[in-house]
Amino acid sequence: MKSIRVILVLMFTQFALHNATAQEKEQMVRMAKLVIDSTQLEKYKVFLTEEIETSLRVESGVLTLYAVSEKERPNYITILEIYKDVDAYKAHIQTAHFLKYKNGTLHMVKSLELIETHPLMPNVKLIQKD
Amino acid sequence: MKSIRVILVLMFTQFALHNATAQEKEQMVRMAKLVIDSTQLEKYKVFLTEEIETSLRVESGVLTLYAVSEKERPNYITILEIYKDVDAYKAHIQTAHFLKYKNGTLHMVKSLELIETHPLMPNVKLIQKD
Repeated sequence: MKSIRVILVLMFTQFALHNATAQEKEQMVRMAKLVIDSTQLEKYKVFLTEEIETSLRVESGVLTLYAVSEKERPNYITILEIYKDVDAYKAHIQTAHFLKYKNGTLHMVKSLELIETHPLMPNVKLIQKD
Repeated sequence: MKSIRVILVLMFTQFALHNATAQEKEQMVRMAKLVIDSTQLEKYKVFLTEEIETSLRVESGVLTLYAVSEKERPNYITILEIYKDVDAYKAHIQTAHFLKYKNGTLHMVKSLELIETHPLMPNVKLIQKD
């Protein structure tokens, strides 16, 4: 009986470890959709550009931050965000450069929607370069 | 008088050439937002995946086609599309693989919205890799 219990405990440990590893390694991919106060759009862009440049340069877990503004509604911004995993994201939002952006632009952002997504082809990577 | 006319013609030619070159070299960046018939979502994904794989492999002017589905509404698909320039896009939509995708999925697509955008940082490139 004892040996069966040991085997079961070992199997469970294996399973738990495997799951933790799988979860840890999954990329976090999402879209942030923002509407910016038009009168402050240029100032907002300066904050965002600095935040993106710094994040990509100093955080290896931030794989992509790619921002676009709509041609017909320039104050509608979408950012495609790809983090190595959830831990990389949690570290990102505690950095000084993220907090500078977040606090510096709070009064410029009229709305923010965060849409969690699954990439259709998770094995294809987007790499960002100068 | 004649020399002034020649100078004006030369200046205009310079200007026109410069503009043509600038326009030709500008990337085309947009988001395609689709709502797919839920009952045909898996079939749709097979078509789209094949189309993206082929485009990235054989068309040097197709820089990025990155598709995500929303976690809370899996049949809401967004594709970030980056083409080298407008000509690359025009060539893309005439390829056999694009037409196979387009015609093969027409009855699966409940809505399609194409949003032309400006990248916030045009000098930063997204590169797609296996």
